[in-house]
Amino acid sequence: MSDDATFPVTVQRITLPGSAVTTEDVTAREEPLEIRVEGRSVAVVMRTPGHDEELVAGFLVSEGVITRARDVLEISQCPSTGNKYGNVVDVLLAGSAVVNWDSLTRHVFSASSCGICGKTSIESVFQRFPVLKASAQCSVIGAESAAEHDFRVSPALLASLPAKLRASQATFTQTGGLHASAIFDEHGEMLVLREDVGRHNALDKVLGWALQRRLLPFQRHILLVSGRVSFELMQKALAAGVPIVAAISAPSSLAVQFADDSGQTLVGFLRGETMNVYTHPDRVKA
Amino acid sequence: MSDDATFPVTVQRITLPGSAVTTEDVTAREEPLEIRVEGRSVAVVMRTPGHDEELVAGFLVSEGVITRARDVLEISQCPSTGNKYGNVVDVLLAGSAVVNWDSLTRHVFSASSCGICGKTSIESVFQRFPVLKASAQCSVIGAESAAEHDFRVSPALLASLPAKLRASQATFTQTGGLHASAIFDEHGEMLVLREDVGRHNALDKVLGWALQRRLLPFQRHILLVSGRVSFELMQKALAAGVPIVAAISAPSSLAVQFADDSGQTLVGFLRGETMNVYTHPDRVKA
Repeated sequence: MSDDATFPVTVQRITLPGSAVTTEDVTAREEPLEIRVEGRSVAVVMRTPGHDEELVAGFLVSEGVITRARDVLEISQCPSTGNKYGNVVDVLLAGSAVVNWDSLTRHVFSASSCGICGKTSIESVFQRFPVLKASAQCSVIGAESAAEHDFRVSPALLASLPAKLRASQATFTQTGGLHASAIFDEHGEMLVLREDVGRHNALDKVLGWALQRRLLPFQRHILLVSGRVSFELMQKALAAGVPIVAAISAPSSLAVQFADDSGQTLVGFLRGETMNVYTHPDRVKA
Repeated sequence: MSDDATFPVTVQRITLPGSAVTTEDVTAREEPLEIRVEGRSVAVVMRTPGHDEELVAGFLVSEGVITRARDVLEISQCPSTGNKYGNVVDVLLAGSAVVNWDSLTRHVFSASSCGICGKTSIESVFQRFPVLKASAQCSVIGAESAAEHDFRVSPALLASLPAKLRASQATFTQTGGLHASAIFDEHGEMLVLREDVGRHNALDKVLGWALQRRLLPFQRHILLVSGRVSFELMQKALAAGVPIVAAISAPSSLAVQFADDSGQTLVGFLRGETMNVYTHPDRVKA
């Protein structure tokens, strides 16, 4: 049995002291996807097949190329240019999309779409996205952004999210090999969950899903990721305007610094009844 | 308190239903490092500072640029070109090093220079390294490679490795945020362990350490990684000739396929008394 996200393997399962049985198992599928924009190759990501259009759309959101669904005219698979290793997707942009080719074409190869590997100057790693504003810092709030500014969730709501994430991680349960990203609304309702061998891909798929449904920028939503949080995940979350990012595991130092500078609330080690709030704790109130 | 690998943060620790205390904690440090080869920028990696020279040397091994310590004349930090975000390292190569700039700078240039006509970017993801030979496939073995061909370890030896890895993971214990890679000899003795926010970096540091000690290619050694195994980790291991790669967690489908094609023994879910041998099980014998 095989589907998009898994791949069957034959495995010798050894149990000490001396038992060895040959059995069938499944692994998380990993295949390269080449992303082209108007015919130009901009990246190869090692991803789990499935939701490829979301992945590509989300990748372009977190690269700062597009911000609205109408910036994309078409995302098409190029079957004739695929080979035994993987597939190629081409994106046709609307005139409204602003492409900085110098920035975009700096990572032709990027493992797991981390967006970093191929970039070749340190400054190019740091994108420019608007920072978020916390309510405490704003004495005068425009009506159009009030929704963002008074967004708060309770610790109890946050603590309820990991169980919902795990309950939906279909492929992880089978393979133990996938990262997950999920978006929740202010009531703790899960809007979407995506899994991938690359944690950045899982997030890009979520962002692409949201873009296609015209839900960006997020203003009153929580992103939950299954593992650790790097700088790059925080930057992708900022590209989508996510005010609260929560993780089951640890953040890196640069994730914390970036979240602090960007006005993002970063919650780590969200496990059981406890959590660590690293930045902008005003959004987490009982 | 702070060292190269960790960074102090102030965190609000919340415990349901209502306790919140502000406390000091440490995160795994993540900073960009720009790698230049003879003045040309080839990549920016997000890494945990420390062992930077090893990281750069190992990166060049797994890129296929160098194979011996003498291929490198000098690896120097460029303090004047560093900025607040990170550092820059430049590598001066010996004449013996064969640089395929087209391949190395695939991190730099998009296919815009070669258009959409040349070789596909997906193929450039796959390097060319000699495959390993299993003993069962060789009826005649040259004396110079016999050591590689009859290399076998017992399941009991493999099962003993994770505890040794964890015992040495100093920074993980503090931060919960680092991947580890370690090399063991055929007796289960750990030669080196390196930690990093990026799993690829942790492996590159190990490879660079080995290169500098003239231990490459590995012939009778085991690589153990703390997490999951992707295609790219297997490719890096092959660049160093590692015959057995073991992981605490799951491999991806492409890691399994690549190991199978390359003659590498891949062991996953190495936990407690059990393990899964995905490829070339001949090297795992009681």
